Amino acid sequence: MDWLLALDLFGVFVFSLSGGFDAAQHKLDILGIMVLAIATAVGGGIMRDVLLGINPPAAFTNETYLLTCIAGGLVVIFFSGRVEKHYHWVKNADAIGLGVFAAIGAAKALEYGLGWVGVLMMSAMTATGGGLIRDLLLRQVPMILHSDFYASAAIIGGAVYMLCHFSGIDEQNALLISAASAIAVRFIAMKWNLSLPKITGGAR
Amino acid sequence: MDWLLALDLFGVFVFSLSGGFDAAQHKLDILGIMVLAIATAVGGGIMRDVLLGINPPAAFTNETYLLTCIAGGLVVIFFSGRVEKHYHWVKNADAIGLGVFAAIGAAKALEYGLGWVGVLMMSAMTATGGGLIRDLLLRQVPMILHSDFYASAAIIGGAVYMLCHFSGIDEQNALLISAASAIAVRFIAMKWNLSLPKITGGAR
Amino acid sequence: MDWLLALDLFGVFVFSLSGGFDAAQHKLDILGIMVLAIATAVGGGIMRDVLLGINPPAAFTNETYLLTCIAGGLVVIFFSGRVEKHYHWVKNADAIGLGVFAAIGAAKALEYGLGWVGVLMMSAMTATGGGLIRDLLLRQVPMILHSDFYASAAIIGGAVYMLCHFSGIDEQNALLISAASAIAVRFIAMKWNLSLPKITGGAR
Repeated sequence: MDWLLALDLFGVFVFSLSGGFDAAQHKLDILGIMVLAIATAVGGGIMRDVLLGINPPAAFTNETYLLTCIAGGLVVIFFSGRVEKHYHWVKNADAIGLGVFAAIGAAKALEYGLGWVGVLMMSAMTATGGGLIRDLLLRQVPMILHSDFYASAAIIGGAVYMLCHFSGIDEQNALLISAASAIAVRFIAMKWNLSLPKITGGAR
Repeated sequence: MDWLLALDLFGVFVFSLSGGFDAAQHKLDILGIMVLAIATAVGGGIMRDVLLGINPPAAFTNETYLLTCIAGGLVVIFFSGRVEKHYHWVKNADAIGLGVFAAIGAAKALEYGLGWVGVLMMSAMTATGGGLIRDLLLRQVPMILHSDFYASAAIIGGAVYMLCHFSGIDEQNALLISAASAIAVRFIAMKWNLSLPKITGGAR
Repeated sequence: MDWLLALDLFGVFVFSLSGGFDAAQHKLDILGIMVLAIATAVGGGIMRDVLLGINPPAAFTNETYLLTCIAGGLVVIFFSGRVEKHYHWVKNADAIGLGVFAAIGAAKALEYGLGWVGVLMMSAMTATGGGLIRDLLLRQVPMILHSDFYASAAIIGGAVYMLCHFSGIDEQNALLISAASAIAVRFIAMKWNLSLPKITGGAR
């Protein structure tokens, strides 16, 4: 399972960059950067674990998660100028983190016996929960709500994981295929600026 | 217990209409509508179950809850014009959902051994927690805080449940009496536009 | 352990004053004042207990906590003019509550086997989580993010607790030394208006 932990930590790291960088742009002090780096990176996984009844959440039982967040926060603090210049790399890495978290969320939800809607919800929550906490703290419109295929990519990743699982594909490959699907959807959506339809009926 | 589940699902359905309709008014895309339909309808029950240590929460162990939310979201997406025209029905249904959730919250809290303040809190949280999440996501002033007898109606429902319980009334009747009381208070408050007093002393 | 419970309840009481007073300043009705008094005073401890897997949280198993919150809310409702005149006392008491909660958070986190980053997080979360919920509900910039040594004081208190613990100092003294350290840091920061550095690099 070492490769899975490595993937998970990679997702945590890029999400901590994303949260910390957002904090720096809002002119928060160094503690604020750390708070947002941690909340963005492990918030989704913690929400998932609390809802599944995993106590304490993985983010607290394996200290490597929090240390990885702190590393991400320190990168923002010391290299914020350079991070900004290469922000498209952060966005790309964020897409990869999204896919990895969606796949891991689906795997954990299935393991804990949730039904298919629950599995899709856990995919979306693991992948977007941290960003949601970041947006609430910074009082921004939550990204998940104006989502141009952000949460949707995570949900597609979760659906692919279930398809693989029920086709008898082993866990490792299912995780890779699922993460790759979500990442592909996310990259395609970013490249062509796709968005979900809005209803144009009577609601104003 | 089938009638209780049916009542609970009715509450979930009308709350998902309320959340989805609010999302449509904020011009969110169809995923945003689904997210708010689900969060509004099961958010309060999930908060209650997490606090009581019910893992995973009922909303995840019985997939019917989430499917009901999706049905509510679809109604908003396909019939939003008509829903809007009959919005007073949504408001009336919301009052019924409020009462049902308050009664169920009180029953679960007593079952898990909380004291009377805890029971009243769980009534209020079950009935208003989903709406609170909706308001936080849409960055509205939380309804629970400018409440013209919204949370108060739930608390009264919880108190009535406890009175019934300690008077030896069986669970089914206690639930019905409690829900009816909260619904009556809510309808009266809507009709006469009642509100709780504000303090007019030195606080400015 | 009676003195620990007494300290904890003292922290709960002053935090309920702080939350209730904030609600009164936002012209909320008496239920809104009670909601904020409760959320501010027990929110941090509930977040901590949920994350550590303590079900139900202490705030629900010992009704004294909630009754103390209600007492604080009533003080705000009946004496809000006088509370305002002596608001510096609320601020001083708040600093004491902060230190007490930081120490208790660290002790519980260690007891449940968290690593050192986790312990510091639980100190900060116990001490600042309630205020965070208050700020989210009132739609204020979270105090923890523009923190002039607020969360930092809690983290320092947590670090001192760990130092005491691993130096073999018994729990009671460790709690007192830790709380006193956090309180001292907080008072010094308030007096000299200390703040953490912001990064001045490329982030704009």
